[in-house]
Amino acid sequence: MKKPYKKPEPGDKVEISINGKNEIGILLESHDRGVLLLKLDNGYNVGFKKEDISEIKVVEQGSALQENIESGFDGKTEGKMSGKKPIIDFIITGGTISSKLDPKTGGVKDLTDSKEFFKMYPEIFEKTDVRIKNPFMKWSENMDSKDWIRIAKLVEKSLNDPHVKGVIISHGTDFLHYTASALSFMLGKLNKPVVLTYSQRSSDRGSSDARLNLLCSANMALSDVAEVMLVGHATSNDDYCYALQGNKCRKMHTSRRDTFRAINCKPIAKVWGDGKIEFLRNGFNKRNKEKVKADAVFDDRIGLIKFYPGQDPGILDYYRKKGYRGVIIEMSGLGHVITGGSNNWISKLKEVIGKRLFVYSVAQTIYGRLDAFVYEAGRKIQDTGVVYLDDMLSETALVKLGWVLGHKEWRGNVATSKKMKENIANEFNKRLGSEFLE
Amino acid sequence: MKKPYKKPEPGDKVEISINGKNEIGILLESHDRGVLLLKLDNGYNVGFKKEDISEIKVVEQGSALQENIESGFDGKTEGKMSGKKPIIDFIITGGTISSKLDPKTGGVKDLTDSKEFFKMYPEIFEKTDVRIKNPFMKWSENMDSKDWIRIAKLVEKSLNDPHVKGVIISHGTDFLHYTASALSFMLGKLNKPVVLTYSQRSSDRGSSDARLNLLCSANMALSDVAEVMLVGHATSNDDYCYALQGNKCRKMHTSRRDTFRAINCKPIAKVWGDGKIEFLRNGFNKRNKEKVKADAVFDDRIGLIKFYPGQDPGILDYYRKKGYRGVIIEMSGLGHVITGGSNNWISKLKEVIGKRLFVYSVAQTIYGRLDAFVYEAGRKIQDTGVVYLDDMLSETALVKLGWVLGHKEWRGNVATSKKMKENIANEFNKRLGSEFLE
Repeated sequence: MKKPYKKPEPGDKVEISINGKNEIGILLESHDRGVLLLKLDNGYNVGFKKEDISEIKVVEQGSALQENIESGFDGKTEGKMSGKKPIIDFIITGGTISSKLDPKTGGVKDLTDSKEFFKMYPEIFEKTDVRIKNPFMKWSENMDSKDWIRIAKLVEKSLNDPHVKGVIISHGTDFLHYTASALSFMLGKLNKPVVLTYSQRSSDRGSSDARLNLLCSANMALSDVAEVMLVGHATSNDDYCYALQGNKCRKMHTSRRDTFRAINCKPIAKVWGDGKIEFLRNGFNKRNKEKVKADAVFDDRIGLIKFYPGQDPGILDYYRKKGYRGVIIEMSGLGHVITGGSNNWISKLKEVIGKRLFVYSVAQTIYGRLDAFVYEAGRKIQDTGVVYLDDMLSETALVKLGWVLGHKEWRGNVATSKKMKENIANEFNKRLGSEFLE
Repeated sequence: MKKPYKKPEPGDKVEISINGKNEIGILLESHDRGVLLLKLDNGYNVGFKKEDISEIKVVEQGSALQENIESGFDGKTEGKMSGKKPIIDFIITGGTISSKLDPKTGGVKDLTDSKEFFKMYPEIFEKTDVRIKNPFMKWSENMDSKDWIRIAKLVEKSLNDPHVKGVIISHGTDFLHYTASALSFMLGKLNKPVVLTYSQRSSDRGSSDARLNLLCSANMALSDVAEVMLVGHATSNDDYCYALQGNKCRKMHTSRRDTFRAINCKPIAKVWGDGKIEFLRNGFNKRNKEKVKADAVFDDRIGLIKFYPGQDPGILDYYRKKGYRGVIIEMSGLGHVITGGSNNWISKLKEVIGKRLFVYSVAQTIYGRLDAFVYEAGRKIQDTGVVYLDDMLSETALVKLGWVLGHKEWRGNVATSKKMKENIANEFNKRLGSEFLE
């Protein structure tokens, strides 16, 4: 201790007496006046009611943490590293995982400084040397194809660096599955793991899921799975994570920590914070020595339409007249839109497809596979030129369409639809039965 | 037996010898040449390989079934009934449950004759006298608000008939949850059960789910639950059904028999084919003697937009310029669209709302509840005039908006949004925690 007494400040290691017990931890900023927030040694952030605290003393001024972090990296680029642990490149892009409570609004704002980020999550340094890359700080709803391309090019560089063992990308939750899909197409066949992760609750909340997600992400980044994966809580407990296939998963709950669910395939693995990995399926690409060449192109002239009963097919004209090149339509479970009565879509589909708008069908049920051959309606719709994308997720289909259309060499009706139906990054699961797979 | 021998024809009761065992059943049309399809006494339709059948004889020419049905009702209106069993009004509207294989295409086509429908499903006569109403035969993707109004008026009539114990509506699966939502708003506080049901597999397939769904629907229609319910398989086995709240459920799988899932609330009950009902929650309306007055109005000038990253907010202009009065936007889990960088939605939202397009926000995660107060983005979006619809399903929100706007007396910004936020038919679950409820 540098001083015998001072008023404890965020960053100090403190010891409190509460209801006859002592607790030691790093004091965090708390925006609830009645609550004192500590990061305990076990990594959890725990809030204590101030009224229950009989004593508080500073054990260590400033934070030992701070020094550890500063020796680990120098902020934006490479830093001093142990040289003994495997190197992970860590790309911070924004989102709740890199945010904290804003005392002005009671809401949450960006943690714009990457050092701050690592002050929150020191555990990842235990096993690895981490190099930070911070191309931008954005909420995922504000990201677009230019950001996906930027990330893809950063990842390509890391994957081709022989010193790097794997890549982690921290990202906003809401549209993370779009970015994961984009990377799965843009990066092609990988040589090392690429792990996307998130948190649903910001780091200064006791229930934050960031710690386990980051530890499990590091474990997967060191593994032999050379795939684009999304790693996050598998259950509502803080016990283990799933490594999900990036282009076959979806955010399914506004706030739950296990919000991401595998859709139409099994997770690749269960993974624990201590490093244990239990594989749930085969058929993934293994770590190898090949060079990765990013194919990071995109055409933004694409749209997504969720069909609803009574819908005017004129919506297709909006996209065509604006010069869009293709749309994904979330049709019914088997791939139907209105084929009789008023607002019949058949002639409008024929018309816009004739005018070179590509139209693809996916299922708005989310789970399962389209089947155009069960009902007459499906055959009528297929006859207009709509192409059915089987069990592909709508979000994945949209991203794939932008990526396919970004290739000049694949232009033309036949080439585009051939690519859309080709199983490029396991976006189709040919073995899918009628199960809800998780 | 009327004749000692004849070639068995569909409708005949036959006995077959297969692998040393005998089976008796009604011969059904089979469109697989190698398979003989029988409706067994237990109600299941089972296919037998013709090559395994050593003998087939006609036990009863034509079908006993046929006569039973013909004494049960006269097709389009009321028929002769036992007079002893409770009366259920049965509204047939189309869908897979009233379809059969089309031998020409190998697909499925409408069973347009309601007698045919009951020939397929005789079990429902065991407990009840059934009166058929058949306003139209449509696949659910071809139904619109006019059809919902027509059904609501038919149901109103049945509910106010003192002889009727409950109502069943058979319906296509794909957009059944839209119709269920519409009825929950249009019918208001009920006096008797209103049950919607479906099948995922047509009646002439061995795995058809129609029989159990119909039996369980009849049980719920005789129960004391005076709510709009959707009854169908609870699991992928043929064991029991759920009675789901009509406006808080969704089709979640293209082909599974238990495709409908309760969203953001528990199912009302488990129900078995033998009549057993196990309630899973309270808080539903009970059978009573009040008159029901249908409030069957709708304004079709409504739209549904599923937001995606990079989306041009110009889509809002499409709806406004076409004279639409309101749109539901499936935003991110917490209710965000683009609020920074290119394609920022904020000014466009302000503009269209200023020009009197109502804009409501729901979550594209499906599960969970919006929370505009966590992030600055949510507050910015709320400031434009977007109204957040908490845990309401996007499909339910769309139908509710059309119904609210159908009321001249509720016009105006304040009145419309007040109604949209009012919990009219339990479309909001105020007690929802972070659980995935089923």
